[in-house]
Amino acid sequence: MDVADSAVEAGYDPAGFRALTFHTSTQAFRAGTDTPRDYLERCLDTIAAREPVVRAWVVLNEDAAREQADASTARWRRGEPLSPVDGMPIGIKDLLETKDMPTQMGCAAYAGNFPKRDNAAVWALRQAGAVVLGKTVTTELGGPEPSVTTNPFHPRRTPGGSSSGSAAAVAARMVPATIATQTGGSLMRPASFNGNWGFKPSQGGINRGERQASSMTSHGVLAGCPEDMWLVATAIASRAGGDPGWPALSGPATPPPARAPLTLAVMETEGWDRLDDASRGAFEQVLDQVRARGVTVLRRDDDTAVERFERALVGVTALASSIMAWEYFWAFRDVVQANPDGISARGKRFFIDAAQRLGAAGYENALEVRAAVSAACASLGPRVDAVIAPTSRGPAPEWLGDVPGEPPARWPTGDPVFNIPGSLLGAPSVTVPLLGVGGLPVGVQVMGQPRTDARVAAIARWLGEAITPVSV
Amino acid sequence: MDVADSAVEAGYDPAGFRALTFHTSTQAFRAGTDTPRDYLERCLDTIAAREPVVRAWVVLNEDAAREQADASTARWRRGEPLSPVDGMPIGIKDLLETKDMPTQMGCAAYAGNFPKRDNAAVWALRQAGAVVLGKTVTTELGGPEPSVTTNPFHPRRTPGGSSSGSAAAVAARMVPATIATQTGGSLMRPASFNGNWGFKPSQGGINRGERQASSMTSHGVLAGCPEDMWLVATAIASRAGGDPGWPALSGPATPPPARAPLTLAVMETEGWDRLDDASRGAFEQVLDQVRARGVTVLRRDDDTAVERFERALVGVTALASSIMAWEYFWAFRDVVQANPDGISARGKRFFIDAAQRLGAAGYENALEVRAAVSAACASLGPRVDAVIAPTSRGPAPEWLGDVPGEPPARWPTGDPVFNIPGSLLGAPSVTVPLLGVGGLPVGVQVMGQPRTDARVAAIARWLGEAITPVSV
Repeated sequence: MDVADSAVEAGYDPAGFRALTFHTSTQAFRAGTDTPRDYLERCLDTIAAREPVVRAWVVLNEDAAREQADASTARWRRGEPLSPVDGMPIGIKDLLETKDMPTQMGCAAYAGNFPKRDNAAVWALRQAGAVVLGKTVTTELGGPEPSVTTNPFHPRRTPGGSSSGSAAAVAARMVPATIATQTGGSLMRPASFNGNWGFKPSQGGINRGERQASSMTSHGVLAGCPEDMWLVATAIASRAGGDPGWPALSGPATPPPARAPLTLAVMETEGWDRLDDASRGAFEQVLDQVRARGVTVLRRDDDTAVERFERALVGVTALASSIMAWEYFWAFRDVVQANPDGISARGKRFFIDAAQRLGAAGYENALEVRAAVSAACASLGPRVDAVIAPTSRGPAPEWLGDVPGEPPARWPTGDPVFNIPGSLLGAPSVTVPLLGVGGLPVGVQVMGQPRTDARVAAIARWLGEAITPVSV
Repeated sequence: MDVADSAVEAGYDPAGFRALTFHTSTQAFRAGTDTPRDYLERCLDTIAAREPVVRAWVVLNEDAAREQADASTARWRRGEPLSPVDGMPIGIKDLLETKDMPTQMGCAAYAGNFPKRDNAAVWALRQAGAVVLGKTVTTELGGPEPSVTTNPFHPRRTPGGSSSGSAAAVAARMVPATIATQTGGSLMRPASFNGNWGFKPSQGGINRGERQASSMTSHGVLAGCPEDMWLVATAIASRAGGDPGWPALSGPATPPPARAPLTLAVMETEGWDRLDDASRGAFEQVLDQVRARGVTVLRRDDDTAVERFERALVGVTALASSIMAWEYFWAFRDVVQANPDGISARGKRFFIDAAQRLGAAGYENALEVRAAVSAACASLGPRVDAVIAPTSRGPAPEWLGDVPGEPPARWPTGDPVFNIPGSLLGAPSVTVPLLGVGGLPVGVQVMGQPRTDARVAAIARWLGEAITPVSV
């Protein structure tokens, strides 16, 4: 047994795992029996213990965090917190700019990049009193090239990506919440692999600041519980608003309470046939419980609109990859050209070669196909409260690097197939850590029509409260 | 008579003024009787003669331009130009990044800023073989604080802004075309004051690359003739596409031919009462000519839909200023905070103070009002081919600086009132240099429904061909 193996937990159990939470501490902050500074110190202790194997962080700004936590401690003591997340230690994915830490995007070409600006979400979190503790590891430029982070439940397995460090930090109980982003499956898939609650809001709902390159990227939140997840998202959206031209995430200032849906549709996607048998079985057990609680569950064989939606989803992974590559080409091409050794071969193929193959006319065609997929999704709106699906096609796969002599792996951080529809449609999605498969986490996701974020959060919370987690 | 006065032309006459054109030279490039290199040298001669007073350029990259022109000369000689704008010397507004020149945005806080990346439009122009000659002067961050450029037709008058240098360079026949941008009235107003043809495409129609901060900014083209204007716009859009998520500018690869409309609506805006008498009289003479050619001209007193549209436009200048300030706040606030002396008091008020007053909820309300204005505009679509209006409320005003002891001027580069609707609605607009008022240019603009760019260009060209310019 090597050092890495010694850090493996006994086996993930979705019914037993207790993530770190923050909202549960604020009464104690107010009463003076706990303080944000003590909370932070406990986080730093956990980081010290787990970080050597998990490797979730690029930079930790401990001194500044302690100052921020002390200021928060004083505010709670005075009874004047700036928000419900005042004092919350939080990690920021290293794609977002932070004025007091570099933003290196997991890419050698951006080594030392330090714009000294705060992303809009970071600015908002500071206004809300949150403790901006550090930058979490991302895959290279948020693309397929993996990074150093390991899965906290098994160090030979991927944490998922691109929000690798954000998801692992929450799973390892280092912090109660982190900021992540998703363009394809970069938030939901790591959430699934790490047993997080994960929230990818409707397109445009959280101001991305300088990160406006993509039409299907969202900032979102990974957290240990649905309450913290929602509080962080609304702390940002109420201060920084939505993207240029978009309304901000709407919903109550307090976490939406659990609400049972009347009707859910199962979304199979192209991934259904690739879902491993154990995960499919566990998911079906969840559906049985959902039906037993009086919810109508529509499947493609039952309902022509669901079938039309599924047919519209055929090919969307390739479609989304094309759109993504073209949109990021304008941000990355000159950097890559100037630093040909500063980006991986996998990254170049994904971001540069694919865009050049597509061209402006190909991109425009892709947008038209996307609009047709959106129309098929919209036709479900009046009759279905939300769709439900596994968040990934199984637990985190093993990742030990490409095999010499074989073609490089396409998805080293896992297959995004179950996450692409939410990104492509700009649909709000929440994943709930409901499944344990072979001692590893797998999520169940709820996805709604664009701008129904609060409804989706309420249904997800109902799943979390009403459904008994399933281990197989 | 001082140096400046000696550069004043005898008086602008819209019927007599001959701007520099490029498409008229390409037959000679092919035949070998002229070359892009010689064309460039003539531009450089004009710049040498006029620049000391006009001050249109921040940086000229003459050596690189000569190399690019020589390469273009060889391509034309071989009969293999990359595009119809191969060899065209072009100026780029200094808000757009260029990999071989700094991007200082007219702002002391950005002095020396040199990202070494090409904006998507600049990349596309290089792919099309255009000669990227230099960066043209912008007002500070594209806002209200004026810059050093003077109006080529009268050096004591403003060239307009924020695309000050782009408009003046075309007016002074330094180059046949320039890239400009508009968020409020930053392209159309300078075009009006400088006798340019000006094209602000539909929102999203030209990929803005890194400049995605605002929901109502467009890249556009200023040129000496409608042919060059269209060729530059399509050279970019066919290569770089539209903004993320938006279709590219659509229309023919060759300049749309003149097409008479069936029906035009006069758009008065809040500016009608501020239009000077001479400009109003000249504009009414244009309308008389338009009617005489069989076009129905609807006015607010004739038509309830036009009247509803006008009522929806009340207050839009303030509305647009709020939206703009909030959206740019996320790009500029940290730079301003870090360099409090690096931005003017006028700029701070415009970009920072206004955003802080507005807040996220105020912004969302502004978006809803904007949607209502768009709905009022859309109701004109089925019955009106386009709207027609003066491009500015008169010729370029005098600008000699703020008056000590008085409040600072609000619009030192001129009032954007006639340009705001096009920006707010994301509507394609073309201005035609049809009027001379007191020996200075004033434009007449055509604005259409979003995505009707080619129709608007065809109607504008018809105005340019069918209507006799009016001098008063």
